[in-house]
Amino acid sequence: MPDEFAFLTTLRAIATHPAAAGLADDTAQLDVGAGKLILTSDTIVETVHYRPHDPPRSIGWRLAAVNLSDLAAKGATPLACLLNYSLSGDADWDRAFLDGLDDALTSYAMPLVGGDTVAMPAGAPRSLTLTAIGTAPPKIPLRTGAQVGDTLWVTGKIGGAAFGADGEPRDLARYLHPVPRVAEGQALAPLATAMMDVSDGLLIDGQRLAAASNVALTIDLDAVPLALPGPVLDAACAGDDYELLFTLPEGMDSPVPATRIGIASPGTGLTLTADGTPVPLPAKLGYRHGN
Amino acid sequence: MPDEFAFLTTLRAIATHPAAAGLADDTAQLDVGAGKLILTSDTIVETVHYRPHDPPRSIGWRLAAVNLSDLAAKGATPLACLLNYSLSGDADWDRAFLDGLDDALTSYAMPLVGGDTVAMPAGAPRSLTLTAIGTAPPKIPLRTGAQVGDTLWVTGKIGGAAFGADGEPRDLARYLHPVPRVAEGQALAPLATAMMDVSDGLLIDGQRLAAASNVALTIDLDAVPLALPGPVLDAACAGDDYELLFTLPEGMDSPVPATRIGIASPGTGLTLTADGTPVPLPAKLGYRHGN
Repeated sequence: MPDEFAFLTTLRAIATHPAAAGLADDTAQLDVGAGKLILTSDTIVETVHYRPHDPPRSIGWRLAAVNLSDLAAKGATPLACLLNYSLSGDADWDRAFLDGLDDALTSYAMPLVGGDTVAMPAGAPRSLTLTAIGTAPPKIPLRTGAQVGDTLWVTGKIGGAAFGADGEPRDLARYLHPVPRVAEGQALAPLATAMMDVSDGLLIDGQRLAAASNVALTIDLDAVPLALPGPVLDAACAGDDYELLFTLPEGMDSPVPATRIGIASPGTGLTLTADGTPVPLPAKLGYRHGN
Repeated sequence: MPDEFAFLTTLRAIATHPAAAGLADDTAQLDVGAGKLILTSDTIVETVHYRPHDPPRSIGWRLAAVNLSDLAAKGATPLACLLNYSLSGDADWDRAFLDGLDDALTSYAMPLVGGDTVAMPAGAPRSLTLTAIGTAPPKIPLRTGAQVGDTLWVTGKIGGAAFGADGEPRDLARYLHPVPRVAEGQALAPLATAMMDVSDGLLIDGQRLAAASNVALTIDLDAVPLALPGPVLDAACAGDDYELLFTLPEGMDSPVPATRIGIASPGTGLTLTADGTPVPLPAKLGYRHGN
């Protein structure tokens, strides 16, 4: 997408404030008095980020979950959110969407405090934005902090939201109802040397973590915790897991349930192994999207 | 729009946190440590909120200006913003949009710190969201504070962005390049008993101020400062002025250039006079939109 690349390059030239951190992260950090806020915003578009026949209740839940997952990766505590909603012309759809959103906001104690509601021209795809604000922990884990010798970990299981050969999610419940790791993120924040959420695929996000930290990461494919039996590379290249990927200092155990899947070593890039021997990287490591 | 009414009713039932203030205002107030933040977010949609042939540079400026005007009405100081952008497939359009946005953000010292960029399906209208964050003044002017005996004022001139009989804005520069009253809002915040921005039309916004404050407001149409010669009711029912409408205690002069246009008295609702005699309210007081 050359247009997107050009756009993001121009956008980064505008977003020069330190809080933007070059738009290299999913979140911004904003100084307010004594503390910091974590800001994140995600837009989901019908047919691009979800299927038109997905249940509206799940779309509402997922819009909250993707933002909460970004807060989780910073160890932030949800504080408030704003909803920018495009009316669909289908009151039942709108109501079910709000039910799902409300369910997530209540579950994670993130009150809705504002936003905007607009009507779209007839036939236009829905475009739904949530902006989430959280309070930052004293030490905010970044993508950039992994050190040589650190161990690499992931929470939960990988690949459940992947699409199977039949074009359907392999684990429909997991796809429709991702569970952001907010409490785990808070517990990990003081300890993790680097952390991010796995939204686009374990491998592509692992590659991003390696690049941001300027280390080489090696993932042992035999260790990757799979949501369902099947080829590990399919699972590791699928998106929508919303698990946390993080590094810990050598010898430290994870304070939350998680699986050790690799190590950081001198060098750059991502390397895969299975049965102790190198495995070539797949051509496509995951789903790529914008800033 | 019964769907929109039903949606907003459901939304208000969800947004029960005090910071949301029942979604009755354009902004939310969020407690953070010692101070408060003002949050606002506006979405503009192609063909709904602007004309497809409007210059993209002006769309970028206006998206910032409408949010800055909401901050201005609270006397807030711009702190940061997030952009949620739908790529148009037209790199020149995107670049010109960002130029206009950057111009406004630089002019008003509101750094861009994050957001999201998405691709829309081919042919979909652009949907552009900006979320603005400001620091609140010690005393935040609300819509609810007008008292019997207060005088009613408006900054600048009214009706310039109105559309004429030829279907074009009467003052094109004013329509394309609204100037949010950020400095004026800051100067007025300690003094105004109530304040809001005039975004949908002087009369409809005046009616909203009266209702929120539970007073009657009388506007002297002869006193309304017109951007251009023409019928005062046309100007007073047109949107996109982005001036500040505020009340001051009886006898107080405005600390910023502004025109006294009316008074608050016991009762409810909006009354118009011209030549000292009552004038019936027009059927349509302005442009109605969502929360």
